[in-house]
Amino acid sequence: MAGNSIGEFFRVTSFGESHGKALGGIIDGIPPGLSLCEKDIQGDLNRRRPGKSRYTTQRRETDIVEILSGVFQGITTGTSIGLLIHNVDCRSQDYNDIKDVYRPGHADYTYMCKYGLRDYRGGGRSSARETVIRVAAGAIAKKYLRKYNVIVRGFLSQMGNICCSLNSWDEVENNDFFCPDTSCLKELDLLIRHLKKSGDSVGAKVTVVAENVLPGLGEPVFDKLDADLAHALMSINAVKGVEVGDGFSVVNKYGSENRDEMTSSGFSSNHAGGILGGISTGENIVVHIALKPTSSIMIPGMSVNVFGDSVQVITKGRHDPCVGIRAVPIAEAMVSIVLMDHWLRQQAQCMDVFNSYLKKIS
Amino acid sequence: MAGNSIGEFFRVTSFGESHGKALGGIIDGIPPGLSLCEKDIQGDLNRRRPGKSRYTTQRRETDIVEILSGVFQGITTGTSIGLLIHNVDCRSQDYNDIKDVYRPGHADYTYMCKYGLRDYRGGGRSSARETVIRVAAGAIAKKYLRKYNVIVRGFLSQMGNICCSLNSWDEVENNDFFCPDTSCLKELDLLIRHLKKSGDSVGAKVTVVAENVLPGLGEPVFDKLDADLAHALMSINAVKGVEVGDGFSVVNKYGSENRDEMTSSGFSSNHAGGILGGISTGENIVVHIALKPTSSIMIPGMSVNVFGDSVQVITKGRHDPCVGIRAVPIAEAMVSIVLMDHWLRQQAQCMDVFNSYLKKIS
Amino acid sequence: MAGNSIGEFFRVTSFGESHGKALGGIIDGIPPGLSLCEKDIQGDLNRRRPGKSRYTTQRRETDIVEILSGVFQGITTGTSIGLLIHNVDCRSQDYNDIKDVYRPGHADYTYMCKYGLRDYRGGGRSSARETVIRVAAGAIAKKYLRKYNVIVRGFLSQMGNICCSLNSWDEVENNDFFCPDTSCLKELDLLIRHLKKSGDSVGAKVTVVAENVLPGLGEPVFDKLDADLAHALMSINAVKGVEVGDGFSVVNKYGSENRDEMTSSGFSSNHAGGILGGISTGENIVVHIALKPTSSIMIPGMSVNVFGDSVQVITKGRHDPCVGIRAVPIAEAMVSIVLMDHWLRQQAQCMDVFNSYLKKIS
Amino acid sequence: MAGNSIGEFFRVTSFGESHGKALGGIIDGIPPGLSLCEKDIQGDLNRRRPGKSRYTTQRRETDIVEILSGVFQGITTGTSIGLLIHNVDCRSQDYNDIKDVYRPGHADYTYMCKYGLRDYRGGGRSSARETVIRVAAGAIAKKYLRKYNVIVRGFLSQMGNICCSLNSWDEVENNDFFCPDTSCLKELDLLIRHLKKSGDSVGAKVTVVAENVLPGLGEPVFDKLDADLAHALMSINAVKGVEVGDGFSVVNKYGSENRDEMTSSGFSSNHAGGILGGISTGENIVVHIALKPTSSIMIPGMSVNVFGDSVQVITKGRHDPCVGIRAVPIAEAMVSIVLMDHWLRQQAQCMDVFNSYLKKIS
Repeated sequence: MAGNSIGEFFRVTSFGESHGKALGGIIDGIPPGLSLCEKDIQGDLNRRRPGKSRYTTQRRETDIVEILSGVFQGITTGTSIGLLIHNVDCRSQDYNDIKDVYRPGHADYTYMCKYGLRDYRGGGRSSARETVIRVAAGAIAKKYLRKYNVIVRGFLSQMGNICCSLNSWDEVENNDFFCPDTSCLKELDLLIRHLKKSGDSVGAKVTVVAENVLPGLGEPVFDKLDADLAHALMSINAVKGVEVGDGFSVVNKYGSENRDEMTSSGFSSNHAGGILGGISTGENIVVHIALKPTSSIMIPGMSVNVFGDSVQVITKGRHDPCVGIRAVPIAEAMVSIVLMDHWLRQQAQCMDVFNSYLKKIS
Repeated sequence: MAGNSIGEFFRVTSFGESHGKALGGIIDGIPPGLSLCEKDIQGDLNRRRPGKSRYTTQRRETDIVEILSGVFQGITTGTSIGLLIHNVDCRSQDYNDIKDVYRPGHADYTYMCKYGLRDYRGGGRSSARETVIRVAAGAIAKKYLRKYNVIVRGFLSQMGNICCSLNSWDEVENNDFFCPDTSCLKELDLLIRHLKKSGDSVGAKVTVVAENVLPGLGEPVFDKLDADLAHALMSINAVKGVEVGDGFSVVNKYGSENRDEMTSSGFSSNHAGGILGGISTGENIVVHIALKPTSSIMIPGMSVNVFGDSVQVITKGRHDPCVGIRAVPIAEAMVSIVLMDHWLRQQAQCMDVFNSYLKKIS
Repeated sequence: MAGNSIGEFFRVTSFGESHGKALGGIIDGIPPGLSLCEKDIQGDLNRRRPGKSRYTTQRRETDIVEILSGVFQGITTGTSIGLLIHNVDCRSQDYNDIKDVYRPGHADYTYMCKYGLRDYRGGGRSSARETVIRVAAGAIAKKYLRKYNVIVRGFLSQMGNICCSLNSWDEVENNDFFCPDTSCLKELDLLIRHLKKSGDSVGAKVTVVAENVLPGLGEPVFDKLDADLAHALMSINAVKGVEVGDGFSVVNKYGSENRDEMTSSGFSSNHAGGILGGISTGENIVVHIALKPTSSIMIPGMSVNVFGDSVQVITKGRHDPCVGIRAVPIAEAMVSIVLMDHWLRQQAQCMDVFNSYLKKIS
Repeated sequence: MAGNSIGEFFRVTSFGESHGKALGGIIDGIPPGLSLCEKDIQGDLNRRRPGKSRYTTQRRETDIVEILSGVFQGITTGTSIGLLIHNVDCRSQDYNDIKDVYRPGHADYTYMCKYGLRDYRGGGRSSARETVIRVAAGAIAKKYLRKYNVIVRGFLSQMGNICCSLNSWDEVENNDFFCPDTSCLKELDLLIRHLKKSGDSVGAKVTVVAENVLPGLGEPVFDKLDADLAHALMSINAVKGVEVGDGFSVVNKYGSENRDEMTSSGFSSNHAGGILGGISTGENIVVHIALKPTSSIMIPGMSVNVFGDSVQVITKGRHDPCVGIRAVPIAEAMVSIVLMDHWLRQQAQCMDVFNSYLKKIS
């Protein structure tokens, strides 16, 4: 496959460019009988939507989703769901200047190397605009998982050198940063103002937690649950690192510190981030991702054009000073898609065992 | 699929348990015409082999590989390659004590949750013993890639708090740690001795670098080259984190620092680790992984048995005090498999463009 | 996967129901650089379109296709192509009567068994309406293959007991039956008139021929070219049989009659239908399919309703008296999709060998 | 993938050549908890085994299978099953004469076109010898399905012009032809004797019936149950046609004859062969395949060699005068593999509905 699909059984396939007519997706493998309408999806789309706060890009997309199939009388039929979202606020002329130029840190050059041509308007397919379909698909997965009490939610855990602690999940939706720590809000605001003024950008770290995941999800060897999460999360634009549980801090840990002991009432700790041997333990699944500072900045940078000449580039257009902010709902979506996929895979192979867990929670 | 395959076009499928009769794999998609014999594979198997130094497990496996098909008169025919490696040094009785016990930090509990039963001998399929087939498959990929000057190699970049700099690739194969920095060898030796005495284990970081990778490998959106690398690397036992290029350090970077500028003679830096927009740039591909300290330690830990009783566990058997050491050839193998897969995928879709790059290096 | 995708590398995924808002598809894996616009697709859509002659259903769909992505400035970019076709002539009320009834010979009952519910309007996803996306995708594959002189075309080879010989390819597009044999046209016309009067339907046989296919396409063992063709063709609604080359007539043949001898100027015959050992020989690929008479007929038939009661059913709505007619462009599309997929797969694995054949024809 | 795997969730991957060291397979996706040992597999292997009667090839292979993994204490663990069968009776020297010659009707020429080289010993990977792994995998699927009363069995329905009626399933295993009709045995014997004398071969038709298949198996659109059966069956060596239910005879049928009416006690007929809209109805699944007469015959035929010269070929070696005979267990295996795969897929997506059917039969 050429890379526009994810998931083995719950499978999401997408299309669309930053400045094309529309973006869309096909969701295959959704179980029949799930109550579903556009409203179920729109909430997360709104959380990701550009232009909704002064901290993100000023491109104003409504991101209104249409369900074109797979739902009849408000219920999923089990057949493939077609989703469509039109682009409404393209300013393609903003990109005429970079038609022949490779913006440093962007995919312009690599798309040219791969395909021998490229859609230069807003980065084309390489734009994070495509994540709108991820979020839509993820919302469907979330809705299904919620039937079984699984809650998937994320937050901004760091921006630049500002670390945000998970003080309160409630707080996350009360500010424009998805920040769980009110004590950081002022600093975050100042940092973004500073970046806007300097024309620069900054990196971020996002954390996602999935609660009440049944044990037994994930396949041994190559399709471990954490391997599929790493795949899904690293596929998000700008992500340069993925951690499960304690992540890179395990490098400097002893086995006696790091292992999670068990008692008859469960695990005593969760360094593993809810996954052992690639299979969910029933503890919270905890993942972190690192997002690079976007390369779309106003500070001039050296590059070359398609003719091989040295040029200086300034990235005009409308951009996020910190792409990590809007990455929160995207990362939640990717985690949800992976969990949903493994949920169905577990039903496929180990239905009898899984049924016994499902009974416990019903 | 139930998780025992990796790769879309260059596809590796494996079987085998720690204490079963044999491990094996099927390599599908190898181009015809490659000169290949057991010797080409044995080298990397020996690098991974247990029992070859005092720093790793004392289980003594010869890891002799047999090619059962797909090669005729020393040349690959294009049909599937069957690989077989017999287990020769199992001491299954060592595991009778833990038959009904979930070792903390191991997959014992999660396998039970998933399947309702488990092969308790040496961890069964969850044992890192399965990585022997990864290394064998990776050696085949490596051999193919080397025809195009692609070199994939790794080293131990950190163990506990000992950081090893990439001073010399040559040094890596001269010591039992895959350490490129002779100034660390004494410290590493002391740490392992200490761990053996205390019955503990320690985490590690491994770095892999792929040189001379042609630009254009990797697919947009979900099957980005880095996403597939993250998947492949996170699927290695004990890995808890994956970084590409600057990884988590980008969180605290500005866009103006992090972007890699270009000149007519190439990129001025490689913070991106050789991948932009999910597609190779032609620069070195650089990835890091974090490996947790193995949970197989002699220090007693609290756990439960299959009957729900609290028990104290000591993991007997023969184990690595730092699984990160032997992870070096495994990580190289996974990177090679992913590169090989994307090499073929690029040929499939963009043959004309790719041909022009291939001509340059031939 | 839940079945809405076909192809390994050139991959078509679709959605849409008979009476939903729209049908759509995503085409993944198309090589960059192909000139493509809606007109290239519309031709085949018009050939399949309902309501264009008195011999087919009177439902009047315009089947206007929109390309939503993957094409920039008239050229494919290599990224996924989104296709959309709106339904414009649904009369869902025609189906209220059968809401609770299983029409005999239809998928009503089996969809209920599978999903526990169904979209009863026009058969929902089980309607042959979904083939509109197959034809659109096939048109793209056809356009690509035509660059290499590959021509894929089909004809009605039998309807009821009327056999149509391949007298002239030119004639096929000159009549409403895709019939290559003008001597049959009167008989065909009479048969359809008779069926309309009696409210009955009839079966048909369709033949597709692919010319100038390069040798070497198809994979050994499970993904043989003929196996993938059989899969693709049997997946078309109403198809009950697939033959390659001489098909079922080989049962009563001797090896000395059936084998295709070779001379230095090529094969002396083509009983094999252009495929040996699952791989194309370079001779014409010839396949036949049998389509059952549609079960949507006005003659009352016995069935049951969802409550288990015996009922008599008459299928109202607008239907084809012989679905085989419109199956011609659909079968061509499926053959084209499979050839395209294997074309790319051959490039992936055996590029060097394939390049030498490509050179010959360029 | 390069074609050596079949199945989405129950997945069989194989390797091995006619004259290689061994053939093998990996079975992925088998549910845990199934009692399984070599004996469960050996029965079907013996039915397919060459050299067991005077009606088939005289190559004497023991076809002893070894289970190398995935089974612990006689029970499947849910991890991948490795299977191995050694070749013991190769006479590769028989093939030296055809080293540079393309045997007419064989894959020699197409393998050369595809790969640029070939393993000429006994046809290498193109030999039907590879079907031994299909049969082994099918036996595992059969064992699982039998837990739910599903019975999959086949018979020789025609050889040359001798038609064999399904008079008695019991008779099928009582003769060397898998013939259910004792009145044909003499004729069949005479035909084979005649073929051996004349050095010729003949075609055959094989029928497989699957009883007690639960309704609901199969996916809409591309992965219809019949589409996947067609794929699996057409992938068997020498198969040139596949029919479901009434197959090609529907071409000349009216809808009023062909549709299967329903009453409250079930379907009144089974023209559909147990599948409607690509989904199982609960009636017997009935498929037929046409196998060409093998091209390995002693009657000289014209061909060319690798240098392009005209040559006359006689195929020495040991061959079946009618490959259709031994195709019976192979076809059963392929049907079983497909049913098993769709069984698991149905559990994945529609577990709740499927559970209700499973309860009825438990």
